[in-house]
Amino acid sequence: MTTRRELANAVRALAMDAVQQANSGHPGMPMGMADIAEVLWNDFLQHNPTNPKWFNRDRFVLSNGHGSMLQYALLHLTGYDLPMDQLKRFRQLHSKTAGHPEASETPGVETTTGPLGQGLANAVGFALAEKVLADHFNRPGHEIVNHHTYVFLGDGCLMEGISHEVASLAGTWKLGKLVAIYDDNGISIDGEVHGWFTDNTPERFEAYGWNVVRGVDGHDAEAIKKAITAATSQSDKPTLICARTIIGFGSPHKQGKEESHGSALGKDEVALTRDALDWRYPAFEIPAEIYAGWDHKKAGAEREQKWHDAVAKYTAAFPELAGEFNRRIAGELPSDWAEKSQAFVEKMQADAPDVASRKASQMTIDAFAPLLPELIGGSADLAGSNLTKWKGSVDAGNGRDPKGNYVYYGVREFGMSAIANGLALHGGFIPYDATFLVFSDYARNAVRMSALIPAHAIHVYTHDSIGLGEDGPTHQPVEHLASLRYIPNNQVWRPCDAAESAMSWKLAIERKGNPACLVFSRQNLKPQQRSAQQLADIARGAYVLSDPQDTKFKAILIATGSEVELAMEAARTLAQQNVPVRVVSMPCTEVFDAQPLEYREAVLPGWCRARVAVEAASADFWRKYVGLDGDVVGMTTFGASAPAPQLFEHFGFTVTHVADTVKRVIG
Amino acid sequence: MTTRRELANAVRALAMDAVQQANSGHPGMPMGMADIAEVLWNDFLQHNPTNPKWFNRDRFVLSNGHGSMLQYALLHLTGYDLPMDQLKRFRQLHSKTAGHPEASETPGVETTTGPLGQGLANAVGFALAEKVLADHFNRPGHEIVNHHTYVFLGDGCLMEGISHEVASLAGTWKLGKLVAIYDDNGISIDGEVHGWFTDNTPERFEAYGWNVVRGVDGHDAEAIKKAITAATSQSDKPTLICARTIIGFGSPHKQGKEESHGSALGKDEVALTRDALDWRYPAFEIPAEIYAGWDHKKAGAEREQKWHDAVAKYTAAFPELAGEFNRRIAGELPSDWAEKSQAFVEKMQADAPDVASRKASQMTIDAFAPLLPELIGGSADLAGSNLTKWKGSVDAGNGRDPKGNYVYYGVREFGMSAIANGLALHGGFIPYDATFLVFSDYARNAVRMSALIPAHAIHVYTHDSIGLGEDGPTHQPVEHLASLRYIPNNQVWRPCDAAESAMSWKLAIERKGNPACLVFSRQNLKPQQRSAQQLADIARGAYVLSDPQDTKFKAILIATGSEVELAMEAARTLAQQNVPVRVVSMPCTEVFDAQPLEYREAVLPGWCRARVAVEAASADFWRKYVGLDGDVVGMTTFGASAPAPQLFEHFGFTVTHVADTVKRVIG
Repeated sequence: MTTRRELANAVRALAMDAVQQANSGHPGMPMGMADIAEVLWNDFLQHNPTNPKWFNRDRFVLSNGHGSMLQYALLHLTGYDLPMDQLKRFRQLHSKTAGHPEASETPGVETTTGPLGQGLANAVGFALAEKVLADHFNRPGHEIVNHHTYVFLGDGCLMEGISHEVASLAGTWKLGKLVAIYDDNGISIDGEVHGWFTDNTPERFEAYGWNVVRGVDGHDAEAIKKAITAATSQSDKPTLICARTIIGFGSPHKQGKEESHGSALGKDEVALTRDALDWRYPAFEIPAEIYAGWDHKKAGAEREQKWHDAVAKYTAAFPELAGEFNRRIAGELPSDWAEKSQAFVEKMQADAPDVASRKASQMTIDAFAPLLPELIGGSADLAGSNLTKWKGSVDAGNGRDPKGNYVYYGVREFGMSAIANGLALHGGFIPYDATFLVFSDYARNAVRMSALIPAHAIHVYTHDSIGLGEDGPTHQPVEHLASLRYIPNNQVWRPCDAAESAMSWKLAIERKGNPACLVFSRQNLKPQQRSAQQLADIARGAYVLSDPQDTKFKAILIATGSEVELAMEAARTLAQQNVPVRVVSMPCTEVFDAQPLEYREAVLPGWCRARVAVEAASADFWRKYVGLDGDVVGMTTFGASAPAPQLFEHFGFTVTHVADTVKRVIG
Repeated sequence: MTTRRELANAVRALAMDAVQQANSGHPGMPMGMADIAEVLWNDFLQHNPTNPKWFNRDRFVLSNGHGSMLQYALLHLTGYDLPMDQLKRFRQLHSKTAGHPEASETPGVETTTGPLGQGLANAVGFALAEKVLADHFNRPGHEIVNHHTYVFLGDGCLMEGISHEVASLAGTWKLGKLVAIYDDNGISIDGEVHGWFTDNTPERFEAYGWNVVRGVDGHDAEAIKKAITAATSQSDKPTLICARTIIGFGSPHKQGKEESHGSALGKDEVALTRDALDWRYPAFEIPAEIYAGWDHKKAGAEREQKWHDAVAKYTAAFPELAGEFNRRIAGELPSDWAEKSQAFVEKMQADAPDVASRKASQMTIDAFAPLLPELIGGSADLAGSNLTKWKGSVDAGNGRDPKGNYVYYGVREFGMSAIANGLALHGGFIPYDATFLVFSDYARNAVRMSALIPAHAIHVYTHDSIGLGEDGPTHQPVEHLASLRYIPNNQVWRPCDAAESAMSWKLAIERKGNPACLVFSRQNLKPQQRSAQQLADIARGAYVLSDPQDTKFKAILIATGSEVELAMEAARTLAQQNVPVRVVSMPCTEVFDAQPLEYREAVLPGWCRARVAVEAASADFWRKYVGLDGDVVGMTTFGASAPAPQLFEHFGFTVTHVADTVKRVIG
């Protein structure tokens, strides 16, 4: 009879062997958490290895993602499509076993982890998604959305500020199906944590309104089982299980020490650990009875089938709702979306409201949200400034409202954005979040993770330049536009008026599986005239907004957002001076860069080197379009505190200065 | 007899009138916290209005910086050089009364606040600086360093993750002279906080090891006085005073409501508030007896004189120590610094160790730290990876060691960096902190604040590219170099070998009052040969590292860090193919951009448009140097998990690819 410890030792052996083979990685955490993982995965986790995307599965997140071999071993042993060959190629190019778990690479990995604390935040997002989706679709006797979210985390996650933000929200929202298991091993990279981590973590989490299970022996399967049972037998509060473990459990010389954390144990120590664990099998060999003890393929298929049966009953009882449910979880937009969203973009062009782009954004949400019940909004305590609420907004975090679609995140930008990633990854939702553009800094790595995972989260940033005025340089973004644009796979839109704002929202919603940042002004922006073709070409990231009449242009002005109208004014002034100029509106550089050469050349022909970019943000970013012969009217310093019109003048965003710059580059 | 309430009402009146005049700003917080501020500033705060820089003053930080008018009113009333005319020009261009308090603009403002939570972090830095400086210099009977740090904060600060990071550290370090006063007004921008902020804050802070004074009536001067007395009569733990207040206190229709938070009350409501407060004076008029009640000029001068007397006694008893103390607080480098640091740079050039630049950084710290007891290091739990500890490192946070010079920040990048800003602003220290370059994201806005305040904090970032290898894309920076370079007033150094590493440290230390980011590799970097002139020219940000022999170059290769040797190899290969190429090493683009045109032209002559930049980071950043005719060998996607050599090859960082690119741009 295979013991639980033997099952857990299979994980330990795979972890230490894979790390040894790669001579790179983190054996300590998998060896320390193996007993906990064994109990969770064998006795509790509802999943189906042959269909990692089964919708109603429990979500499992490894927030301490450096222990990736724990997750790979679990996936391999329980029957996921992660063969031993992949474990042998741990941390090698093109393997499915990257250094840290990556959702886009490995079947069964729910989210990409490694940046500490964010896995916990994603898990809060999963748990929130489960709650809200259940509010939307479950009906008495029909709990078609009903799963737990389990997350492993370590001291590092708990030290990170984001753990505070999201644990506080999980407590407020009473996410009773969220179970976090804290690997309390007393060790972080710098050594024993008592010199830098003295929090009373159980009391801290109780202060957030969590259910805390204290002092569990993380190497005692029965104690672990009892703790998880306690967590799952209530659904009033999220649970933190504090499990005392020994890092590198089994390694005679390195267990309990930092030495087992982040590098291979060494051949000799691996051999000694085999002996100590009484594990008699060579590297990467798992005996059949151990595989049998872990195999969840059959049980998983049965679970999924049971759920399909339940969904079938649900479909019979609520056919329309079931259709909507299936659409939502498939991530498909409604059949009337394309037509209605296009009609709204055209209406915004025709109506041409003279409003701030943040207001145009709100008008767009007002138009799109009724079409898209999957849209779940929110702001980091700036709803009235970001204009992210619409007339149908209903609190989704608190209470149980079937119309819940808006999250009050409080002043928690990083937590908000990482929770949004969890909402997006769960399925059934397209989340948008919001703060001032300058405070995208606070959320920065979560925005990066949206692009890397990738996750279909829409980040709304308002107050996008010195144009916000009096709040001053602490609140005025300068480098943020460029910084966000440099994140690979991120699309940053900075629309110049209501029509571009509506189009940017439409495209962000249609960017299935991938994120976008929508950047809006505080101040009013004048609407621009466009032909149908120009309106359509917004979707190409940049387009010719205006060309001189009856003559060839001598220079090109490129602008975005609030500076487009300035460029247009400068072009009109220059025209009066017989200097014909083209104006290009470039709301999204990433999308433009991805257009075929022919289109890019049509917009920015190579023969014209007299180019001036105008954007109230980092000037140097624009050198990629204006080259060494052109120039930029942009920002090279921090802003200042004053009314916006004075600031624009002070920093050179005037018709005269732009026109003079154009004339200078023409030479 | 002037009552305390009347004194406080002067603050209220100035706040509401200045916001009304600007028609912009936040009256609610100053009106809510006026009574608390009156007690703190009149009964406790040790300061000298006529010398805002008196070294032993208590530090006061307004972490909820949107309430800037509170601070301006206090500075004005107590006698700082902030005349009424400045209050009348609140939030106007070139005034000293910016929208949020700015240390560089206003006498008496210790740090720039507004980005929530960071003021608290700066305050923890101030309190840590006081403790460690006292450890360094105080002697029995001679407490020349002895002051409190007071910080006001609101719900927003407490929701932010950074509050967790720094409160945890303050508790661990037992910073008993830190007193935080929480403006518990139950309101944030989205309304009453109970929907998004349900923490039991007192219990949370007790879990961090703080002394908590609960339930103080923030409008009862005696209760406030009792609470602050309780805080200052012990020095074992930091204190959190939870003060219940009414936001917008005095405004008949807006007090207690979000409406009073972020915009002018309106003329009518201002008039009604005057009546309600029984404040009979016109806008911006303060009667003489109220001024008299606030005036601290005389008391402040006496306090400072007392301290000078104490320092004189100290100087008599410990002349050498006193000299060092005066040097430290003046922020002057030791007299032998210039010579010894230069000698070390030359030694690194001569010795030419073939080491990772993170190792070269550690060798430099080992050489410089004994010269600079003001250097206070630290890392976010990556000391062994960042190589930030040196042989004289002693824990400064815990215990009371006169040699304390190293801070174990735990896994708290944002808190660390903002604490470093506080250490730098306090005086007596040059802090350096460290994490992986990719996790500069977590600290992002504190790095921005280093540049904006500005503060002389040195941020060390190691593992600077895909060259870190197997940890994969979550740990591999791509956009970070460009993003950090775009922060105005930030200097980012990415040295290519040991000599450049030493020079970058030297220059960062000499950048008095301003920050730098030092970016180092995980992997070994081959040393480059240099003449004395070339060695000196490192300080110009970029210089010609190699020119072809006996012939004019046809192309320029520009590289940084680990890609410099690749550029050199490519140049050697190209030379064999009769393609003469110049190689420019550009460790700091900001410093190079600030050189005179003549120097820049000498390095990158305008006639040569065949330019190729090579850096394992965002390619487009380099367009500012290579223009539209050149090209970049850089990164355009995220990295991957694999051994570093395979990654460099995979992403095109090969001699062949660089050489081919050069040949293509030559045409």
